[in-house]
Amino acid sequence: MISARGYAAHDPQSPLRAFAFERDEPRERDVQIQVLFCGVCHSDIHQAKNEWSNTVYPCVPGHEVVGRVTKIGAGVTTHAVGDIVGVGCMIDSCRHCKPCKLGLQNYCEGPNSWLATYNGPMVPAKQAPGGLNTYGRDNTYGGYSDVLVVRDDFLIRIPPALKPEVAAPILCSGVTTYSPMKHWGVQAGQKVGIIGFGGLGDMAVKLALAMGAQVVVFTSTEAKLEEARKLGADAVLESDAKALEPHASSFDFMLSTVPQRHDLNPYLPLLKRDCTLVVVGALEVMAPVNNQQVAFHRRSISGSLIGSIAETQEVIDFCALHGIGPDIEMLRIQDLNEAYARIEKGEVRFRYVIDMASLAEESVPTTLA
Amino acid sequence: MISARGYAAHDPQSPLRAFAFERDEPRERDVQIQVLFCGVCHSDIHQAKNEWSNTVYPCVPGHEVVGRVTKIGAGVTTHAVGDIVGVGCMIDSCRHCKPCKLGLQNYCEGPNSWLATYNGPMVPAKQAPGGLNTYGRDNTYGGYSDVLVVRDDFLIRIPPALKPEVAAPILCSGVTTYSPMKHWGVQAGQKVGIIGFGGLGDMAVKLALAMGAQVVVFTSTEAKLEEARKLGADAVLESDAKALEPHASSFDFMLSTVPQRHDLNPYLPLLKRDCTLVVVGALEVMAPVNNQQVAFHRRSISGSLIGSIAETQEVIDFCALHGIGPDIEMLRIQDLNEAYARIEKGEVRFRYVIDMASLAEESVPTTLA
Repeated sequence: MISARGYAAHDPQSPLRAFAFERDEPRERDVQIQVLFCGVCHSDIHQAKNEWSNTVYPCVPGHEVVGRVTKIGAGVTTHAVGDIVGVGCMIDSCRHCKPCKLGLQNYCEGPNSWLATYNGPMVPAKQAPGGLNTYGRDNTYGGYSDVLVVRDDFLIRIPPALKPEVAAPILCSGVTTYSPMKHWGVQAGQKVGIIGFGGLGDMAVKLALAMGAQVVVFTSTEAKLEEARKLGADAVLESDAKALEPHASSFDFMLSTVPQRHDLNPYLPLLKRDCTLVVVGALEVMAPVNNQQVAFHRRSISGSLIGSIAETQEVIDFCALHGIGPDIEMLRIQDLNEAYARIEKGEVRFRYVIDMASLAEESVPTTLA
Repeated sequence: MISARGYAAHDPQSPLRAFAFERDEPRERDVQIQVLFCGVCHSDIHQAKNEWSNTVYPCVPGHEVVGRVTKIGAGVTTHAVGDIVGVGCMIDSCRHCKPCKLGLQNYCEGPNSWLATYNGPMVPAKQAPGGLNTYGRDNTYGGYSDVLVVRDDFLIRIPPALKPEVAAPILCSGVTTYSPMKHWGVQAGQKVGIIGFGGLGDMAVKLALAMGAQVVVFTSTEAKLEEARKLGADAVLESDAKALEPHASSFDFMLSTVPQRHDLNPYLPLLKRDCTLVVVGALEVMAPVNNQQVAFHRRSISGSLIGSIAETQEVIDFCALHGIGPDIEMLRIQDLNEAYARIEKGEVRFRYVIDMASLAEESVPTTLA
């Protein structure tokens, strides 16, 4: 066993705090990583606070992980000690279902679905028909920690052109917005609407612009309008109904990155006929939708869940090629709970990235999980 | 002017009653029709009772019209006196917008959208930027009447293989269900779910079966289960959660024909990855949807609005070819209000069709509209 330490939530209310635990030694095809950086995703907060009612405590969040390979199993040929690699939202999947065979691990239909980097399996293993997940435990611990062990084919190569701390958030917020844009065929010259301008929205705007699209940002925060315009997008205040009007029936694609239940009705009339609004930010019950606005121009409302391993590599390479990445702010892990509070207030447009070196300053209790 | 008579609603509460009015004489490209039969659609009731808050009174419903040509304008070459023809939900459109030029009149983006057979234009002409509609009035009167005048290219040819009274409901309930099945590519061997088994549902099931699909009907009415099975479909009681389970992630396409707000959440998990549930029955605010069920398998919720003129001709010809049509019950216009009440209770699986000969028995007040 490997001694690991990290930051964990122990219940929905208390602040996250230092936590010591053990990880399995790398097996044949596993890679051991020293975590350098880990992005803070809004879903970390949802999960730490049990807002999806499926959190297994203690919960060590973190699925935007970049680290250095420190050890590899005997069967690993694709990564070497010293490589800079990334781990996103998944560390395994069933490998046998149709989506897995198509390389769509994020839509795995196996008994436990894909294995989440933390709080996995999504269906607690003990209740799932297949029993334990491939990591032999009924909970996985994520990237808010100093060490991670992951199967080789769920690792992403981080090219030297991308700073590791900038690459980290792309592994979730990047692929979550890139995957639907690719799937629904966003291309140069199209008009793309991005609803919400936090961590996901920031990446969505940069990716859509790099794809050659005309981008309009819809935000509820007046202070963010100027930030969006600086990137080269138009920006509209969500509450300004008059400002929405000229955009009626003009969008080829819209992406909602708002991380909670919200009203899609103001946006549906902005879509062209036969076009789609995809919700990636909110995995919950949405506000009721008026089907008149959907049916009258045969519009669609869809959802999309992160992206495949291949798409994750693709978006990392795309960002390296186009020189784009999230706006980040480095965070000491000791300031994590404060950062959570700011994100929850919707104040944060950049992505917090934890510098895992700060974890060394922690005196971690010696009692194990 | 042509003296016409029909049945009209004069306010949201009172029963419909006999009503005398005038229609314009046919112009160059217009065709005058003696109405033989008119289907009763659930949306007639919504409109008569102002449930969409846009009814212009007096309101003469009826958009499933079959009649005999009695007079044609000098420029009409496609129809002759004596022909049996149909009129569906639209009698005109702007003819200039992109959808119109593509032959998608039902998605017309002109200032008044398409011109509805009754209660048209949908945006009352006086408020609309383009002013009056092409019929020179701010309200159109539908097929619950003895005579209709319609532009030649919005008429449907009814082949001799279809009884005129059977053809009538196909002009709305047929094309409304046929159009999305064609658009989303329903084909032989696929599994199709039809939610709701009234007038629309009945046509949807027959069309999907004729396309070679495996069909499952979901209904809230136990008595309808056997009816669906007789047609060759499987049937499941909506409230029976256990009966839904084996259908998880198995449908290539689902169509909701329920004519009012209802909950889609039980059905979303039944769709395969990347597949679509299309709502055609309810043009209103739906129950809130859980985006988790949408995103986790990249499902879509869409809407669809009737169908184009070409699709209306196509579904009429398809029904004639396959020998299918709605189950109908003939109705004397004097029994209309009673029929409305039964439809509203959800008791009616067949389609009521008004035999317009019954209108001759009415003593209609001589005061005009």
